[in-house]
Amino acid sequence: MLLVVKSGGEQALPEWRAGFADVAPELDVRWWDEPGLDPALIDYALVWDPEPGRLATMPKLRAIFGSGAGVDAILRDPHLPTHLPLVRCVPPEGTQRMGEFVCWAVLSLNKDARRMAIAQANAVWDAFDPPFAAAARTVGIMGLGAMGLRAAEMLRGLGIPVVGWSRTRKIVDGITCFAGPAELPAFLVRSEVLVCLLPATPETVGLIAAPLLAQLPQGAGLVQVGRGAHQVLPDIIAALDVGQLSGAMLDVFEMEPLPADSPAWRHPRITVTPHAASLPSRHERARYIAECIARHQRGESLPNLYVPERGY
Amino acid sequence: MLLVVKSGGEQALPEWRAGFADVAPELDVRWWDEPGLDPALIDYALVWDPEPGRLATMPKLRAIFGSGAGVDAILRDPHLPTHLPLVRCVPPEGTQRMGEFVCWAVLSLNKDARRMAIAQANAVWDAFDPPFAAAARTVGIMGLGAMGLRAAEMLRGLGIPVVGWSRTRKIVDGITCFAGPAELPAFLVRSEVLVCLLPATPETVGLIAAPLLAQLPQGAGLVQVGRGAHQVLPDIIAALDVGQLSGAMLDVFEMEPLPADSPAWRHPRITVTPHAASLPSRHERARYIAECIARHQRGESLPNLYVPERGY
Repeated sequence: MLLVVKSGGEQALPEWRAGFADVAPELDVRWWDEPGLDPALIDYALVWDPEPGRLATMPKLRAIFGSGAGVDAILRDPHLPTHLPLVRCVPPEGTQRMGEFVCWAVLSLNKDARRMAIAQANAVWDAFDPPFAAAARTVGIMGLGAMGLRAAEMLRGLGIPVVGWSRTRKIVDGITCFAGPAELPAFLVRSEVLVCLLPATPETVGLIAAPLLAQLPQGAGLVQVGRGAHQVLPDIIAALDVGQLSGAMLDVFEMEPLPADSPAWRHPRITVTPHAASLPSRHERARYIAECIARHQRGESLPNLYVPERGY
Repeated sequence: MLLVVKSGGEQALPEWRAGFADVAPELDVRWWDEPGLDPALIDYALVWDPEPGRLATMPKLRAIFGSGAGVDAILRDPHLPTHLPLVRCVPPEGTQRMGEFVCWAVLSLNKDARRMAIAQANAVWDAFDPPFAAAARTVGIMGLGAMGLRAAEMLRGLGIPVVGWSRTRKIVDGITCFAGPAELPAFLVRSEVLVCLLPATPETVGLIAAPLLAQLPQGAGLVQVGRGAHQVLPDIIAALDVGQLSGAMLDVFEMEPLPADSPAWRHPRITVTPHAASLPSRHERARYIAECIARHQRGESLPNLYVPERGY
């Protein structure tokens, strides 16, 4: 069984191989650009951002595995073999890690960890009065999938009030849930810290921009752990500079890696993290994908399939 | 009623005054070094680190309020009027804030936020494989007072296993509790992230040093939110440099402000925060102290009194 990998660069291949060796030693794991690799021998592909057209050259390919929870970088391929199952990588560790990251990001904003990091970089003891008691600021979560729900549950465990918004209405114990475009304004006005956990779909691209940001309470915080395509970075910076936003934790960007000349790196109220929010280790992801392959081999259904009608 | 203040420097006086004005407008709030202030007129003192001997010069003084949860900087005064009640500042907001800080610090260690902050300072997209799933590392809390218990509860809400250690045995639902010096080794070997929330007493001074650190599992994390006197900084740095510790969040130091030439500022595995862990805002503390003064005026007992036999 041959699995070809394009995720994390060639330097990540040994980690992927070690992960698969533990759980599926029969898998032959190869690098995407391995010289002389015959596309006709490839059974499965594990990819983050395949070059357009390449997957279509693999006649025996039986399923495509994304290496992340979102597969939008795969969907950009106009020649994507859409008859094949496309599996989003959502191992349980990813949900837990996302909840942890959201809690960490919300607490970082409420404690102004960015200011503390800048002070440390300058070896300055900057004993400022703490800006917010985290429990006093309501967190609004956009996107109530498995990750959003776990994040909400963990935030509530910290004593933080939570409201939620999703495309279709969800009923969640202890959380006021809003749904659809009509209820978005009522949700935003409650969101003193806005967490974006939406998938990238035609409806959500460009959503985190000036018109939305203006509807938040003044001085709100922003945690962007959705997709880079959701956000208009100049609008976020403008909102920070006039105080409409008090801080932003940005984990995703339109172009990744974020270019060294991006103003986000040096902005005193932006924390940049390298798309690290929910990423399970390669070991955890290899185990999940190996399980999926085993199911597929047995003719069983695959979990977390991309659904074109839904957009994710 | 005259309250004299020495906490946060003279520049903090307007914030203290604003806080008291809201809840106790009858209080006359003065700066400690106000020229011409007659010590004989002072009823109450709110202090962090009073110059030795000064409090003893105030004949009418009726109670001393610390501006933090620990009063060790006040106890250094050999002429401290020990017949007066000494009140630790433990408003409920402080407990909640400490719990939030501990969760933030534990998550910061598990996600290697220090590495992310250094990468941001250098505008480098450093997409490393995440080192730990937080839920997979047991947190050991030393000190199970109100703050330790709230921190434990919040950590468990994040899905993180918790063990605890205290001077006298506590029974806490869902937490394995160790007690006394005899059980310290059994506690330490379980503590993959060690959180120090102890008060500074003769028994705890210098505790966070090489012999204790050597008993932690290799690669453990350290969160120091107790007192600076607990720790031997060179030992912590040595443990980090050989990998016995993987990271440390230090909020307290023997000398505060931390001098600009301390190696802690620039160590790649130490995060320095400016004694910010549990500090409620001056507004919150003013409300708590005003309540205490009102109780005292009515002849009622004062909360959170310093107990010499206990040492805190």
